[in-house]
Amino acid sequence: MSGFFERHKATLEKALDAARTRDYWSPYPEVASGKIYGETAKDDGAGAFKSRLGQAFDIAGHPSDGGTVGKEQSPYGLELGITYPKASPALLLQAAEDAARGWSRASIEARVGVCLEFLDRLNKHSFEMANAVSHTTGQAFMMAFQAGGPHAQDRGLEAVTYAYAEMARTPGSAIWTKPQGKHDPLVLEKRFRVIPRGVALVIGCATFPTWNSYPGLFASLATGNTVIVKPHPGSILPLALTVQIGREVLSEAGFDPNVLLLAADEPGSEITKDLVSDPSVRIIDFTGSNAFGDWVRENAGRNTQVYTEEAGVNSIVVASTDNFRGMCSNIAFSLSLYSGQMCTAPQNIYVPDGGIETDEGHKSFDEVADGIRISVDKLLGDPDRAAGVCGAIASDATLDRIVSAADLGPVLRPSSAIENMNDARTATPLILKLREGDSDAHHREHFGPISFVIAVSDADEGIERAASLAAKKGAITASIYATDDTILNHAADAFADAGVSLSCNLTGGVFVNQSAAFSDYHVTGANPAGNAALTDAAFVANRFRIAATRRHMAA
Amino acid sequence: MSGFFERHKATLEKALDAARTRDYWSPYPEVASGKIYGETAKDDGAGAFKSRLGQAFDIAGHPSDGGTVGKEQSPYGLELGITYPKASPALLLQAAEDAARGWSRASIEARVGVCLEFLDRLNKHSFEMANAVSHTTGQAFMMAFQAGGPHAQDRGLEAVTYAYAEMARTPGSAIWTKPQGKHDPLVLEKRFRVIPRGVALVIGCATFPTWNSYPGLFASLATGNTVIVKPHPGSILPLALTVQIGREVLSEAGFDPNVLLLAADEPGSEITKDLVSDPSVRIIDFTGSNAFGDWVRENAGRNTQVYTEEAGVNSIVVASTDNFRGMCSNIAFSLSLYSGQMCTAPQNIYVPDGGIETDEGHKSFDEVADGIRISVDKLLGDPDRAAGVCGAIASDATLDRIVSAADLGPVLRPSSAIENMNDARTATPLILKLREGDSDAHHREHFGPISFVIAVSDADEGIERAASLAAKKGAITASIYATDDTILNHAADAFADAGVSLSCNLTGGVFVNQSAAFSDYHVTGANPAGNAALTDAAFVANRFRIAATRRHMAA
Repeated sequence: MSGFFERHKATLEKALDAARTRDYWSPYPEVASGKIYGETAKDDGAGAFKSRLGQAFDIAGHPSDGGTVGKEQSPYGLELGITYPKASPALLLQAAEDAARGWSRASIEARVGVCLEFLDRLNKHSFEMANAVSHTTGQAFMMAFQAGGPHAQDRGLEAVTYAYAEMARTPGSAIWTKPQGKHDPLVLEKRFRVIPRGVALVIGCATFPTWNSYPGLFASLATGNTVIVKPHPGSILPLALTVQIGREVLSEAGFDPNVLLLAADEPGSEITKDLVSDPSVRIIDFTGSNAFGDWVRENAGRNTQVYTEEAGVNSIVVASTDNFRGMCSNIAFSLSLYSGQMCTAPQNIYVPDGGIETDEGHKSFDEVADGIRISVDKLLGDPDRAAGVCGAIASDATLDRIVSAADLGPVLRPSSAIENMNDARTATPLILKLREGDSDAHHREHFGPISFVIAVSDADEGIERAASLAAKKGAITASIYATDDTILNHAADAFADAGVSLSCNLTGGVFVNQSAAFSDYHVTGANPAGNAALTDAAFVANRFRIAATRRHMAA
Repeated sequence: MSGFFERHKATLEKALDAARTRDYWSPYPEVASGKIYGETAKDDGAGAFKSRLGQAFDIAGHPSDGGTVGKEQSPYGLELGITYPKASPALLLQAAEDAARGWSRASIEARVGVCLEFLDRLNKHSFEMANAVSHTTGQAFMMAFQAGGPHAQDRGLEAVTYAYAEMARTPGSAIWTKPQGKHDPLVLEKRFRVIPRGVALVIGCATFPTWNSYPGLFASLATGNTVIVKPHPGSILPLALTVQIGREVLSEAGFDPNVLLLAADEPGSEITKDLVSDPSVRIIDFTGSNAFGDWVRENAGRNTQVYTEEAGVNSIVVASTDNFRGMCSNIAFSLSLYSGQMCTAPQNIYVPDGGIETDEGHKSFDEVADGIRISVDKLLGDPDRAAGVCGAIASDATLDRIVSAADLGPVLRPSSAIENMNDARTATPLILKLREGDSDAHHREHFGPISFVIAVSDADEGIERAASLAAKKGAITASIYATDDTILNHAADAFADAGVSLSCNLTGGVFVNQSAAFSDYHVTGANPAGNAALTDAAFVANRFRIAATRRHMAA
C-alpha cells in the first residue's frame, strides 16, 4: 500500500460530508496567491509552461506507434508548437486492456488513494495548468487558474467521493443467517467485490478541457476502469499534463501507468470515432455538441454506457426586480465572461414588451434592454478589464458565428475586438433585439458571445417559451428576476419540468454561469443538454458492478 | 397525506439496514401457513382465483378502447378464459402522461408510502397470487406462493428501499455559504427536488411474472414515474392483480390511478414493440430473451434508459467434494426445480474426465454423472414430490426443445412426463453427456429442463470454459465444488472477471437457483445475461434527476 488513502482520508471525509449537506466546501484554494501556493508558484508555473513550447511532450513509458502529433494554436496568438506521443486506437486499447487486471483487483482504498493523491498533485500544478488552459482555450489567466485548476479539481474530487460512497456501501463480506424454525439456521458467508466495466473513454472539449473531463476521468478511474483521455485537438496540453501527473502517481503506487492513457490527435486526422465505436470501450464520457453527441450514442457499442454534456439554449426571464442596476450588471457579467463561451452562459433574455416594475420605477422593454447594454459597455469599457473578463475566442468558427449572427435581427449592441489584444482572437458580446413570433433565430444555440433580448407579452409567456425551448433543445441553466413569489414558484415548477435548475434574482457576486462542486448539480440529465449530472449517484453507480461468492458456514 | 409512510416506516428502516448488512431479512413470511396469513387465507385465495375464471377482469377506471383481450392457458390444463381491458399504446401513453404531474410533484415520502402500502396489500393477497402464478407459469403451488408472493414482494421492497435511499440522500434544501475574505460571505438558499424521467414500461416474462417485474415496477414508481405494465401474453393474471391492487392504493392516497396501467395483449397481436419504440417511454425494464433484448435496446428512444435481464448459460464446475451425496442431491434439485425453467438454473456441469476425489474416494467421470442422475431419479421417484418440485412446463416451445435436445448427444437421463399429471404439460430433466471439443451444443442456452455433463481435462479447464462462455453468452449463476481453496479462489477471480456471482460447495438447503433479496445481487449487469442487477444503486439512481433552485439570502 502506498499510504495515499490514509494521507488524504480526512479530505475524503470532509468531501463526503459536503456532498450530503451541499454547503460550500473546497480543499483546493481558488485564490491564485503566492501565500497559498508558494511565493514562486506563479513564476514556476509560467516557466514550466514556456519550457514546453516547441518541444515534444514526453510521457514516460506511454505507448506510441512512433512519431508525434499535435497542432494546438493559442487563441492569444502564441505559437505553441508542442507535440505529443502518437498512438493508434488499437495500440491504446491493447495497452489499456493489458493494464486492467492489477487496477481492477486493487482494493477500493488503493484506487481511491491514488485518485486523491493525483488530485493533490494537480492542485500543486495549478499555475502551470492555468497557463496551459489559458493558451489553449483563450480563457483569461485568472479564470483559467480557477476553472482549469481548483474548480476542476473540486469536480474531480466530487466524482471520487461519490464513487467511493457507492463502492463502500456494499460490505466486503457478510454473514447471511436464515432461520429454519426448529432446525439449524442456514448460514452463508458472502464476499462482494467491485468489478469495473472495462476501458473508459473521456472525450474532452475545446473550452474547458479539465473541468469537463475530470468528473468522468476520476469516476471511471476510482471504480477500477482503465481510462483513455481523448482531448479536443485544440486543447491537448491541459490533459497531457493531467495524464502525465496521473501516470506518475499510478507508478509510484505500483500500478501499470497505462491505466491512464492519452489519445492525442490533430485536426483532419481525429481518432475519436474509432475509439467511440470500438466495442471494448465500455464507458464514454463526452462533452461537446449535440450533433456529435448523437453520433456517439448511435455508434457506441451496445454494452457501452455513455454520459454526455452537450449544449442547449439557456434563458433569463425578467419579470420584475428590486435591484435594477444589480440585475443589469449581473446579466452583463454573465454575457461577457469568457465571451459567452460557457455551456452555462445565457443566450435568451425574455422581457415583457410592456416593460417591468423595478426599484427605479417602471422600465420599458427598451429601457431594460438598454440597461443591460449599458452595463456591458461599462464592464468592458476598460480594455484591461475587458481582457480579464472576456479572454480570447477559442475558435475561428465562433468568430465567424458572431459575424453572421449580426444579421439575425436589430443589433442592440455590436460585438467588437478588445483593444490592446492585437495578436489575440477577441470579441465582446453581440446583443440582438427580437420579438417572439417575428423570428426563430433564438430557438437554437449560437455558441459564443451572442445573445437576444426578446419581447414577450408577459413574464408567464417568457417562462413558458424558455422552459419549452429547454425541454426541446436542452438547457444547462435558467435564471429569473421577479419580486413576486407566485412567479418564482411557477418558474421553479416550469423549469423543473423542463429539467433545468433555476437561479433566482442574482444581483450580486454569484452568476448563473457558475456551478459549485458538492452543491450545484451541473446539468440535470433531464433534457437534451446532457444525459448525466455532475455529480450524482447515477453518474458513478453504473461504472462498476458487484460480483459475489457465497459458501456455507458451520452454524 | 395518507399516512402510509408513517405506517410502514419501521419496515423501511429495517430494509435500509438489511441492504447495508446484507444479512437475511424479510417482512413477508415465505411459509404458506394459515397461522401467519389467517386460517381461511388459503381457501379465500383459491376462491378469489376461481371466481375470476371465465370472467372479464375489471380494473376500475382503467382506460380502454372498448373490448377485451387475453388468451392465457394454464400449463395445468385448466381453461382460464379471463379477459382484460383492451387499450392501445397511444391511449395508455396518453393516460400515463395525463396522470404524471400529481405523482411527480408528490413528496418522496408520499410516493414511498404508497409503494410500501401497495406491497403490504400484495402480501395479503399472496394465496390468490399463488394460484394466479401457478396457473399461468406452471410453477408448483408452493413455489408459486413463495416466488410469486413473498419473494417477489421482497424484491419490490428492495427496489423501493434503494430508491428511497437515493432520493433522500439529497437534502430538500441547503444553505450555501462561501467566505469572501474580509467581505460578507456569499449566501445562497438552494432547494432540490426529484424529477422523474417520465413514463416507465415494465415488460414481464412468462415464467416469473411478479418476481422479475416488481423491481423495475417499484423502482420506477417510487422515483415518480408513471408505470405501464406489459405482461407476457401467457401470464397476465398475476400482473393484472398487481395493477388492480396498486391502483386502489393510489386512489386512496389521492393520486390518479392511471399512474399505474396494464397493457394486456394476446399472442399474434402483441403491443410490446409499439410501446418500446415510442420515444415518450423513458424507462424500460425488460425480462426475456437475448434476441428480444437486443431489439429493445436498438429500438428504444435515444433518451430511454433500458434495464434488462436476459439469458445465459449457467455452469457448475465439479473439481472435488467432501460430501458427494450432498453435492449430487443439491445439483439434482437445482436441475429439477420448476423443470429448469429458471434464469438461474444450471445447464452445463463440467467434470474432469479423470474423475474427482470425494469423501467416498475417487469417483470416475461416469460415476459423478451417474451420481447426479441417480439423485434426480430419487428426488422425482415419488410422483407427488415430482409434481411439487417440477410443476408444469410453461410453453409448448419448451416441450419441443426437450424433444429435439435429446438428439444433441448421448442421453444420461431421458426426460419424461410426470405420472398423475395427465392434463398438465410436464417434463423431468433431460441430461446429456458430452466431451468438450466434440460438440458445441452446450455453448448456447437451452431453456428448460435440459442439461449437460461435460468432460473436461481438469477443473481449471472447466473453470476456464464456463467463465469464457459466461463472458460471451452471459450467465446469471455459477457454482463450483472444490475442497481446495486455491481452486475456489481461482474460480472466484475467473467468474468475477466474467461478471458472474459464484456459489461454492452447496450441499445443503441452499441452491444455486436461489437469490435472496437484500443480500444477493441477482444478475451482475456485467455480462450479456443482463445490463442491470437487482437491486443496486445503479438500478434506481438514473430513474430520476435532481432539479434545483438557488437564490440569495441575507448574510
